[in-house]
Amino acid sequence: MQREHDTPRYDQLIDAYRPIVHLDGVGNLLSWDQQVMMPAGGTPARARQQATVSRLRHERLADPTVGDYLRELGDAELTEIERAAVREIKRQHERAVRVPTELIEELRQLTAEALPVWEEARETNDSTGFVPMLEDVIELKREYAAHIDPDRDPYEILFEDYEPYLSLDTADAVLAELRDALVPILEGIAESEVTISGEPLQGEFPIDQQRSCVEDVLDVLGYDWEHGRIDTSTHPFTSGNPFDSRVTTRFDPTDLRPGLGATIHEFGHADYELGLPRDAYGTPLGESRDLTVHESQSRLWENHVGRSRPFWTFLLPRLAETFPSLADVSPDAAFAAVNKVYPDKLIRVEADELTYHLHIIVRYEIEREVMAGSLDVAEIPAVWNDRYESYLGVRPETETDGWLQDIHWSSGYFGYFPTYSLGSVLAAQLYGAIERDIGSLDEQLTTGSVGVIQDWLREAVHHHGCRYPTPELIETATGESFGADAFIAYVSEKYGELYDL
Amino acid sequence: MQREHDTPRYDQLIDAYRPIVHLDGVGNLLSWDQQVMMPAGGTPARARQQATVSRLRHERLADPTVGDYLRELGDAELTEIERAAVREIKRQHERAVRVPTELIEELRQLTAEALPVWEEARETNDSTGFVPMLEDVIELKREYAAHIDPDRDPYEILFEDYEPYLSLDTADAVLAELRDALVPILEGIAESEVTISGEPLQGEFPIDQQRSCVEDVLDVLGYDWEHGRIDTSTHPFTSGNPFDSRVTTRFDPTDLRPGLGATIHEFGHADYELGLPRDAYGTPLGESRDLTVHESQSRLWENHVGRSRPFWTFLLPRLAETFPSLADVSPDAAFAAVNKVYPDKLIRVEADELTYHLHIIVRYEIEREVMAGSLDVAEIPAVWNDRYESYLGVRPETETDGWLQDIHWSSGYFGYFPTYSLGSVLAAQLYGAIERDIGSLDEQLTTGSVGVIQDWLREAVHHHGCRYPTPELIETATGESFGADAFIAYVSEKYGELYDL
Repeated sequence: MQREHDTPRYDQLIDAYRPIVHLDGVGNLLSWDQQVMMPAGGTPARARQQATVSRLRHERLADPTVGDYLRELGDAELTEIERAAVREIKRQHERAVRVPTELIEELRQLTAEALPVWEEARETNDSTGFVPMLEDVIELKREYAAHIDPDRDPYEILFEDYEPYLSLDTADAVLAELRDALVPILEGIAESEVTISGEPLQGEFPIDQQRSCVEDVLDVLGYDWEHGRIDTSTHPFTSGNPFDSRVTTRFDPTDLRPGLGATIHEFGHADYELGLPRDAYGTPLGESRDLTVHESQSRLWENHVGRSRPFWTFLLPRLAETFPSLADVSPDAAFAAVNKVYPDKLIRVEADELTYHLHIIVRYEIEREVMAGSLDVAEIPAVWNDRYESYLGVRPETETDGWLQDIHWSSGYFGYFPTYSLGSVLAAQLYGAIERDIGSLDEQLTTGSVGVIQDWLREAVHHHGCRYPTPELIETATGESFGADAFIAYVSEKYGELYDL
Repeated sequence: MQREHDTPRYDQLIDAYRPIVHLDGVGNLLSWDQQVMMPAGGTPARARQQATVSRLRHERLADPTVGDYLRELGDAELTEIERAAVREIKRQHERAVRVPTELIEELRQLTAEALPVWEEARETNDSTGFVPMLEDVIELKREYAAHIDPDRDPYEILFEDYEPYLSLDTADAVLAELRDALVPILEGIAESEVTISGEPLQGEFPIDQQRSCVEDVLDVLGYDWEHGRIDTSTHPFTSGNPFDSRVTTRFDPTDLRPGLGATIHEFGHADYELGLPRDAYGTPLGESRDLTVHESQSRLWENHVGRSRPFWTFLLPRLAETFPSLADVSPDAAFAAVNKVYPDKLIRVEADELTYHLHIIVRYEIEREVMAGSLDVAEIPAVWNDRYESYLGVRPETETDGWLQDIHWSSGYFGYFPTYSLGSVLAAQLYGAIERDIGSLDEQLTTGSVGVIQDWLREAVHHHGCRYPTPELIETATGESFGADAFIAYVSEKYGELYDL
């Protein structure tokens, strides 16, 4: 009986993996705290704590014993679930063994130290201190990629850390397809006689009141406060595990849209984590799939729910209880305002669903060039501004509104940005699949009964953890292979109607 | 040259020790977050994160390589500072190697799980769910002690985790001396014709306003906000390292004293951490001495500053800016109110400086008996109430106000309580030494110029880190050996005057 023998070995592998999951959780908390709670002077200790946790995590993952278990399980008789867990651990282990622990430690310490330097640069619109630090980060990321495979494009290797199963070629093709489809729509909008105003959702919206509004919206969406909380941070993000998944947001006191949008977006991330099977916590089956899928959850809620007419029909009267001026706004006007295309908006996280991908393409091109060594950090600001001018028709006047707006590069997240576009595309596929399954969701959105969406995502996506590689998960959930068609059809129809194209 | 050879080995030892310090910092943050920020449902993940960090810390500390380094350094030529670091690491290593990692991990997970159970028991005044958990904690603590030395009193071994250098015999003797000295004073107060009222500091004090008051007090004391923050928690505590040392407090909306007292107390702890030499962070020279010294810092600020007449002369007008009713209170009346002896007060952290030690003695007796196996957990509530009746003349009516009031046992902190009394005693010695050095501090306290105290403590205590064992540190700082005389003289004079004894 092969089975009798294999299961203990499988259990040993899982036991060796659990600390890695828990150290990930610890690292997440250290980051959350640094961005949300830590006094500014805490960085030197925090950076070393982060470095130590990363080092220990890496040592565990690269441990030769893990390799032995994996080899012994190579031709063992395993259940499908067990094979999936082995596949995920193997993938991570094989990367880890190639990278020296010291490099992991150094990189983590450096990025923790770079965070406040980026924050300061962003705040003061002065990148002088940040540039040399970012150069060091990039140098270490290049070294990291070279350890994994010196013969491949380092960018491709880094991309795989965020999306291991959809290839960089796929990302490339999707981004090209998006550009080809979106630019004509944007041209149509530029020529359209329809003028949409953001004013219905602009005015005076004190932050305390906005806070209670977004808490109410989170209630409506089904956020589980027993396992979550909301705070503010420079860059909105979610930090989570299946038991404790926290969101952050940020508010604009003159505009309701950024705070609401960021909150609904982060809810999608948090709800994914909270929907993972808790009894599999500590194993790959209890972990979220990578960033394409994660981003599909946030973008589905942000765009397909939070930027839909029926949901705004529901939402407006609730918001008007806090902000009486909204009583005069029609759902159509609010719906239009949250979808107004701003080709000249400089900030990615506030972008509409069309120009969003042009923001991504700028970043994607620049980070590929930086990693290939054909672009220096010092040249980024000018190139960034040129590309904004060329792709979006607008030139940032400050570094703060330009290349310093995103946290990613300071954290060493090169190869991350394309997953935002991939996730948006997948969101449209998933939303289409939900409507194929259970019919139009308009009525549920109009009454705020969005639990049906959560339920569907729980079953089709969340409950699987890392059971399936990304493409298989998408096929299982939607019956289709991954592609941009659903997204392009969705935005063509939505913006065609809005702008009478 | 022996020296050339030894220093690299010493550096290796220190490099092996650094991750232990950083993991301590990580564990502290996990606890801080659990008590201050974490959503209630986060416990299952947090408990496993804590267990993982404890396990990795223990593995590092018990690593045979550390033992090898220590042996090789045994008769090496080292500087006094290096010898001190070796001494501290050796002490911890020798304990760690005797205890199985699994036990450390299990204990940490259990105590993280016990925290919310204790909180719930305390809140609902129902210990049904907590009792079996505490039994498990105690069982594991007994096992832990038996691994270290099966032939010694387990309580003594646990005590050494909190105070390794002043023996349990010393603690025993000091507690007996305190009881002998304090009981007659308390009897005198009971018979005194002086009546002191707490009313001057009682009334309506909304929590938001109290919060801004204690922040102002922290400013006065010299709290470094760049490296700190204040929050509220069920049980006030400090979590810190030299770069990031945070305090918590709790407020009573009808009484100013608990919030102020807890804040000033925790400031003392935080200021110790922030005064450690930052360039030695990651080594024993950058770590605080154990709990007697730590508690001496908090008690010095809480009692010798925060319960002094001159400081209240300074403080009252500032508080009156927020709470106008205080404008009618005299410094004498406020001074008396913060020192009013409440023989019938049930809560330790709100106790006056005399009965405080009777609260400690009750806990000390009970935890010794529990560890010796002569008292079961189920019997604690009744024994607790009997001892309160016998020593303090008052019987708790609820478990919440009785044995459930303190967090310590749920955290497995058996042997911790005596250090509160030892620390109070040391605070009086240190305060006496400061006044011998630089004369009466009354004028500085009256003007809020307490920086002189901070400066003295920095130089005499904080800057040394773990350079000296506790008794030597005390002698270096005060010129005296450790003892209760200064404390007994201090309270005799203070309460003699207050109650006209």
